[in-house]
Amino acid sequence: MTVITDTIRNGVDTGRMFATLDLIKAQPELAKFQFRATNRWLGGAHNRTSIKDFYAAGGEDTSRTEAFSIDAGEPAILLGTDTGANPAEYLLHALAACLTTTIVYVAAARKVQLTSVESTLTGDMDVRGALGVDDEPRNGFERIGVSFRVRGDASEEKLREVVRRAQQRSAVYDMVTNGVPVAVEVTTD
Amino acid sequence: MTVITDTIRNGVDTGRMFATLDLIKAQPELAKFQFRATNRWLGGAHNRTSIKDFYAAGGEDTSRTEAFSIDAGEPAILLGTDTGANPAEYLLHALAACLTTTIVYVAAARKVQLTSVESTLTGDMDVRGALGVDDEPRNGFERIGVSFRVRGDASEEKLREVVRRAQQRSAVYDMVTNGVPVAVEVTTD
Repeated sequence: MTVITDTIRNGVDTGRMFATLDLIKAQPELAKFQFRATNRWLGGAHNRTSIKDFYAAGGEDTSRTEAFSIDAGEPAILLGTDTGANPAEYLLHALAACLTTTIVYVAAARKVQLTSVESTLTGDMDVRGALGVDDEPRNGFERIGVSFRVRGDASEEKLREVVRRAQQRSAVYDMVTNGVPVAVEVTTD
Repeated sequence: MTVITDTIRNGVDTGRMFATLDLIKAQPELAKFQFRATNRWLGGAHNRTSIKDFYAAGGEDTSRTEAFSIDAGEPAILLGTDTGANPAEYLLHALAACLTTTIVYVAAARKVQLTSVESTLTGDMDVRGALGVDDEPRNGFERIGVSFRVRGDASEEKLREVVRRAQQRSAVYDMVTNGVPVAVEVTTD
């Protein structure tokens, strides 16, 4: 029982975590991952993404038995019928989820037992950009605000240090703050 | 009937679309929007985002009667139990959904009737960055590939022009390619 108590922290198996890190240090080629999404338009602002397989650790990972199906939409004011959260809101979700999981993993590695992690995100946008009314405002959010409330069995300073480290390591935080090269190709046949 | 046929195109009410554009041109202050998300950790790599209200057109928009609830997770190889797509996959979904909706709206405005819009996205990542094993690889995707198949009652050149215009106007494409300033604040009480 002691072994289990020591290994699982914040719902994360730290034994497996450190074994994974050691394996990737020894064989860096296993660190190449590719994630994928396929999307299909369903009418108006409604479209649906399917997410399942990915490439990881030297081969196709087929451990997921079912695909995740994720619907997007727009509210009435943006000419949709609320068939799902809108794409910009999904970006906020991606950012919140990634920072949260990274906080949880960093805390697990540092022997910090968390009791709660909550966040509120805001994204401010002047829609004249995306609507093509004015070239001055950018299309996307001008800024994003993230407000975390993190509680656990550690000092305030240690909890803040966990969040700082998570910002330094979060995949989506990196992408949203620094941008990513995107190549778009089109077929029409 | 003729009026309805002329106004609704690709499931988008172009009459309302042009009225909205005219209104925002006349009163640019109505273009200030704020989208929001709240997220809560549920254990391990599992967390859930709630999305409902937003600020739009000079006031709180409360037209949504229910919140969208969106679960995130990680696959086994990243120490989760597949409680949802992972955060980086949600970023691909946000990008696919935004480009698709923008294509549909641009086509509607340009009198192009679409029959299908499908896309496949890939994101390549060296997970040594996010796992903190090596400082050299970035945390997020090194690159994202987007492959669209767009069909409709227009020439190949016109369909390609619609996609190009959508890239120039998509909110999430702008954010993912150019980045957004993100301010993080933390409370621990």
